Amino acid sequence: MYIPTFDDVIAAHERIRPYIHRTPVLTSSYLNDLTGAELFFKCENFQKAGAFKVRGACNAVFGLAEDKLARGVATHSSGNHALSLSYAAGRRGIACNVVMPRTAPQAKKDAVRGYGGVIVECEPSTSSREAVFAEMVAKSGADFVHPYNDPRVIAGQATCSRELMEQVEGLDAVIAPIGGGGMISGTCLTVSNTAPTVKIYAAEPEQADDAYRSFKAGHIIADDAPVTVADGLKVPLKDLTWHFVKNHVTDILTASEDEIIEAMKTTWKRMKIVIEPSCAVPLATILKNPDVFRGRRVGVIITGGNVDLDTLPWMKG
Amino acid sequence: MYIPTFDDVIAAHERIRPYIHRTPVLTSSYLNDLTGAELFFKCENFQKAGAFKVRGACNAVFGLAEDKLARGVATHSSGNHALSLSYAAGRRGIACNVVMPRTAPQAKKDAVRGYGGVIVECEPSTSSREAVFAEMVAKSGADFVHPYNDPRVIAGQATCSRELMEQVEGLDAVIAPIGGGGMISGTCLTVSNTAPTVKIYAAEPEQADDAYRSFKAGHIIADDAPVTVADGLKVPLKDLTWHFVKNHVTDILTASEDEIIEAMKTTWKRMKIVIEPSCAVPLATILKNPDVFRGRRVGVIITGGNVDLDTLPWMKG
Repeated sequence: MYIPTFDDVIAAHERIRPYIHRTPVLTSSYLNDLTGAELFFKCENFQKAGAFKVRGACNAVFGLAEDKLARGVATHSSGNHALSLSYAAGRRGIACNVVMPRTAPQAKKDAVRGYGGVIVECEPSTSSREAVFAEMVAKSGADFVHPYNDPRVIAGQATCSRELMEQVEGLDAVIAPIGGGGMISGTCLTVSNTAPTVKIYAAEPEQADDAYRSFKAGHIIADDAPVTVADGLKVPLKDLTWHFVKNHVTDILTASEDEIIEAMKTTWKRMKIVIEPSCAVPLATILKNPDVFRGRRVGVIITGGNVDLDTLPWMKG
Repeated sequence: MYIPTFDDVIAAHERIRPYIHRTPVLTSSYLNDLTGAELFFKCENFQKAGAFKVRGACNAVFGLAEDKLARGVATHSSGNHALSLSYAAGRRGIACNVVMPRTAPQAKKDAVRGYGGVIVECEPSTSSREAVFAEMVAKSGADFVHPYNDPRVIAGQATCSRELMEQVEGLDAVIAPIGGGGMISGTCLTVSNTAPTVKIYAAEPEQADDAYRSFKAGHIIADDAPVTVADGLKVPLKDLTWHFVKNHVTDILTASEDEIIEAMKTTWKRMKIVIEPSCAVPLATILKNPDVFRGRRVGVIITGGNVDLDTLPWMKG
């Protein structure tokens, strides 16, 4: 297992700079009053392909050796990583194959195809996904870019908090959502190397709290099929992301589904930005744990803005 | 009738600077590809109180003479002007009375009260509104700040395009929605004084196209009660705003309800920002008139982001 270093982050940043946005940091006096903290929102919802995942995907794709280009890249994902890898591959002019359940929403399939990705359908089960993916990679020889358990991807995601630390002086803490742990691992990589006294919090849905339980237990616990509105956060930690979580995260905080939806709606209403349910989990946990954050300068990573505008969570039921 | 000058705009900008945001300008490569133009979105949805109207309201309130402060300010509006005047009065510590139909949505009443405004209810008719307003002003002696037909308000709104011209070099055109004409008048005031070759377009719903018909006829035409999703644009031109429209606007373009809703949804989806239906009218007209804008650098004023997140227009019916 290769653990990426901060030199890898600097190299990643140089490599991906032409293909990503240096996203803005927004503030809200309303949310500062509400939380008693000073919050600095790093808006990766404005990122290319609508999410931070394009950083890691671009680092993997633009770091590929020349002799691997002809066979392209591949992944399995029905979310932002599939979009991002398709975007990155398109910018480099190479093939991108994405294994996706045939039951995935049409909008997601359309979005991947819109960025030039090729979808290979599987049945909606882990066994089918793994079998179809193995066959596709064997046939194409494509380079597998894992959504998070990949040092290239983590070094790419780390460029987000590197920008945040440049954009905001004197942060006391950074908080980001945790699913598989790619963004949090990147945050740990940057912060532990550049500002080791800054605290790092991970925010997770109560209904998919495998990282929280792993953190408390001291070893990886994976859930089979958690159900949460924060659909980007259902996946489990893997060895590489667990390394960073275990060694560098200050604490993992959780929030209920209602708290997440309320924080999401408040962000839309007050900040006038479209964010995914996953990105609302940090604000939900800050509201739930005011004593942890009061009086602190806190960087909050807004991870993405790809939502289905026809089925907003506060309208369900 | 006093016509505000560009000196009034400079004075307004100095006066209101501590109370407003210098809002960012966002771009979208997707929308540039779609329109063939280079679009620069001036994001007043991120403005204090959620709309550009706070510029004019602050200019009126902070320009009030000391001897008028005790009697406060007043207006009739159920929209962003009421919010903005309440915000401005609150910042100066003076009273703000708002006449509003008793049938106005509870959310709007709550928002005005949230900023410290006092609501005086009237029946939902013009005659009741005028009678209640006259009585309230007679009793309180409050200074009436009209939502748009007021030189102080127009000079304040003009600071928006002043910032835009500073933020983006070499614009060929500026486009903004038109209702009563406050924002367009401010845009005319700035652009005609600082960059007179830049074209000025106003965008209006087909179903509330009184400004379009006025422009073609050469005199003010007012509709009684137009129905459109762009609810900020139902009000008619008045003498002061007509002066600017008649003398400085290049053309007025219109869009249908479906085109407005589609442009609104596209903006949310692709730019990840929450905008009101009214602000989607410019993009809708750009998409409808590609030959007018192709190859041009166009400033697009996003006027506000105060929407009811529970009833989005593409979900109705």
